[in-house]
Amino acid sequence: MFILVNFKAYDVDPVAIATAAAAVDAETATNIGVAPQAADIGPVSETGATTWAQHTSPVEPGSHTGQPLAEGLARNGATGTLINHSERRLTLAEIDASIRAAERAGLDTIVCANNPDQIAAVAALGPDAVAVEPPELIGSGTPVSQADPSIVSDAVEAAAGVDPAVDVYCGAGISTAEDVDAAADLGADGVLLASGVAKAEDPAAALDGLVTE
Amino acid sequence: MFILVNFKAYDVDPVAIATAAAAVDAETATNIGVAPQAADIGPVSETGATTWAQHTSPVEPGSHTGQPLAEGLARNGATGTLINHSERRLTLAEIDASIRAAERAGLDTIVCANNPDQIAAVAALGPDAVAVEPPELIGSGTPVSQADPSIVSDAVEAAAGVDPAVDVYCGAGISTAEDVDAAADLGADGVLLASGVAKAEDPAAALDGLVTE
Amino acid sequence: MFILVNFKAYDVDPVAIATAAAAVDAETATNIGVAPQAADIGPVSETGATTWAQHTSPVEPGSHTGQPLAEGLARNGATGTLINHSERRLTLAEIDASIRAAERAGLDTIVCANNPDQIAAVAALGPDAVAVEPPELIGSGTPVSQADPSIVSDAVEAAAGVDPAVDVYCGAGISTAEDVDAAADLGADGVLLASGVAKAEDPAAALDGLVTE
Amino acid sequence: MFILVNFKAYDVDPVAIATAAAAVDAETATNIGVAPQAADIGPVSETGATTWAQHTSPVEPGSHTGQPLAEGLARNGATGTLINHSERRLTLAEIDASIRAAERAGLDTIVCANNPDQIAAVAALGPDAVAVEPPELIGSGTPVSQADPSIVSDAVEAAAGVDPAVDVYCGAGISTAEDVDAAADLGADGVLLASGVAKAEDPAAALDGLVTE
Repeated sequence: MFILVNFKAYDVDPVAIATAAAAVDAETATNIGVAPQAADIGPVSETGATTWAQHTSPVEPGSHTGQPLAEGLARNGATGTLINHSERRLTLAEIDASIRAAERAGLDTIVCANNPDQIAAVAALGPDAVAVEPPELIGSGTPVSQADPSIVSDAVEAAAGVDPAVDVYCGAGISTAEDVDAAADLGADGVLLASGVAKAEDPAAALDGLVTE
Repeated sequence: MFILVNFKAYDVDPVAIATAAAAVDAETATNIGVAPQAADIGPVSETGATTWAQHTSPVEPGSHTGQPLAEGLARNGATGTLINHSERRLTLAEIDASIRAAERAGLDTIVCANNPDQIAAVAALGPDAVAVEPPELIGSGTPVSQADPSIVSDAVEAAAGVDPAVDVYCGAGISTAEDVDAAADLGADGVLLASGVAKAEDPAAALDGLVTE
Repeated sequence: MFILVNFKAYDVDPVAIATAAAAVDAETATNIGVAPQAADIGPVSETGATTWAQHTSPVEPGSHTGQPLAEGLARNGATGTLINHSERRLTLAEIDASIRAAERAGLDTIVCANNPDQIAAVAALGPDAVAVEPPELIGSGTPVSQADPSIVSDAVEAAAGVDPAVDVYCGAGISTAEDVDAAADLGADGVLLASGVAKAEDPAAALDGLVTE
Repeated sequence: MFILVNFKAYDVDPVAIATAAAAVDAETATNIGVAPQAADIGPVSETGATTWAQHTSPVEPGSHTGQPLAEGLARNGATGTLINHSERRLTLAEIDASIRAAERAGLDTIVCANNPDQIAAVAALGPDAVAVEPPELIGSGTPVSQADPSIVSDAVEAAAGVDPAVDVYCGAGISTAEDVDAAADLGADGVLLASGVAKAEDPAAALDGLVTE
């Protein structure tokens, strides 16, 4: 399993959480990654944590201002990027171009979507992975694997029907090892989470709580 | 005069250009700033160059993904931010909120706009500075101070009519000391430029050429 | 006073409400206008009601798909258009261009904004009128003239400071004649409302209730 | 074959072109539809022409301003709607919701996309039809069936691989019966065009030229 912790625009110390994530990653069989804001990618990657961007621009190098160019993310230490997160939706053509941009810069890709139909749609664009996050469960505290397990298994099936090589993640409401295990049982290759770790009083303990039971 | 060099999403070495900018800034009476991509702010600010963001998100800390939070830009070394660049247009409410976000994080602000009426509009929102950039001249190679000098003097007058404390910059097509001097003669407090320096074969020489005659 | 009733995307009979509005307009000293969806402008204007668009595209005639061209709204009976409604925010450059598009087609303009600073900003662009609608009060049932009267008087002052010829409207939570009178006492030239009339069980009675006490 | 003529935001007489389209539709075996701006849907549909919207909002009835609600388009005479036209791009979630909105209102759907991968993506969302339009050929005068025939046959194959019930259209540069026949030979069920008819000096003759050789 791969657990990716999105720091969003939380008022937190990204280096401290990344340091904790790198330690848990080293001590356990679970792979942990972190997704800080673009400006924090450099110092976060220097902790040794597997570092992802929250978003990459679909553009090629050129006259574009205020957008995170894939090459700029990569040269500061990112090894992957979320695309089309529910808080950063893109047009279909931009999703397609963002996957191409990430490939160009050597970044892995996880493309987010709302439901199994949309998962099939983004799987058709050839990303490394897709992630299903039902909008109504984001930030709800109720894990998707419990509130709506079929959405996870349907997403796994939908992606496999289009491209069996595409990994499938799920997200929304995940905060315990039980939730992570339930996601794995439903066929997910990993989970996305955010506040459960990044806003925890003790992020290291929260991460430990995800990988041990 | 303040010269702000926007690195856009150019395929350039941001640290090398920033190092050159810091040197010219130290050796001359002209203040030079640089605006790299968000992920490059840390290494660029470590050169000692005055570092600006190309864009800041209007949001407050919280559940927002893939947006550059003002606090995140500031903690990595940015001291100011462009807002509403012609390649990163915002709604009016977002411009207002972005100025508030920058103030919250201690970032200076330059809000871009197309013409004198829009300059008056953004001056009413209380930024530190405004910048007029006629869209048809961006990247044209023809300096705004020569192609349409009245747009600069009208922008200076428009901003002063709303708030005399707001500085006024101009941009588009500027590449020589003569262009910079012409902007100053028209009442501008500084200039924005991009390709003239950032894509020059020798950025240090291009910067020298802006401040000496 | 001018009362403009926004039909939004409500599931209502636009012709029936417009017919009621035209009757109240004819029988009283208050001017009533209605703002249906673009596709309903023709049949609504045929009732004799003063018909406004909810939005106009900033574009000039040409290769643009799925946008309401100002000339198309006008030829079907619209005499004015809202611009930058809180549910249809535009960039500053688009607000400017939308005012120009409306002028080109002979449409009156009301540009919406959140607060007095933004009112000053949009007044600088030369619309016929501006409308202040505090986002937190929209749909709240609490009239802006009661919840935050200073926002209305400050907006009136802000607009007058930029351009005394610009009319000022207010909106959010208005549903009674008392609310309308309070808005007038604060210096407003008119009010915007929506659900209070459009979703009323008896829209004609709701309109009567706005103009008589 | 179905030929859908997009009137875009052209400065043309929509009723005149629609009248010509209805006549050609009645006189030939080819089905002709027209896609006027939202405000023109009523008078255009009264000509008897098969009338499509250029865009429908993804929203359900409610508090949404300046967006064409599917029900509003349908009650004024539209029988179908384009979705995600290259000049009106939507996020993936909006494309999905727009298809649902159109179904709710009884409108047929054609979802546009750039290339065969994106065609597979949108086919996964269950529209009635998809349309491939290579952006670089739009308005080029060079028909897609001639410039890049494999993009059409690849799109037909990509859609069939996802859902054989989805019709496939192509567009960009089509202006003659030869182009239409070439599209049919490549497996297309119809074509989208715009300026070739809508901006022709004699739209009726241009339509005749599409269906006879």
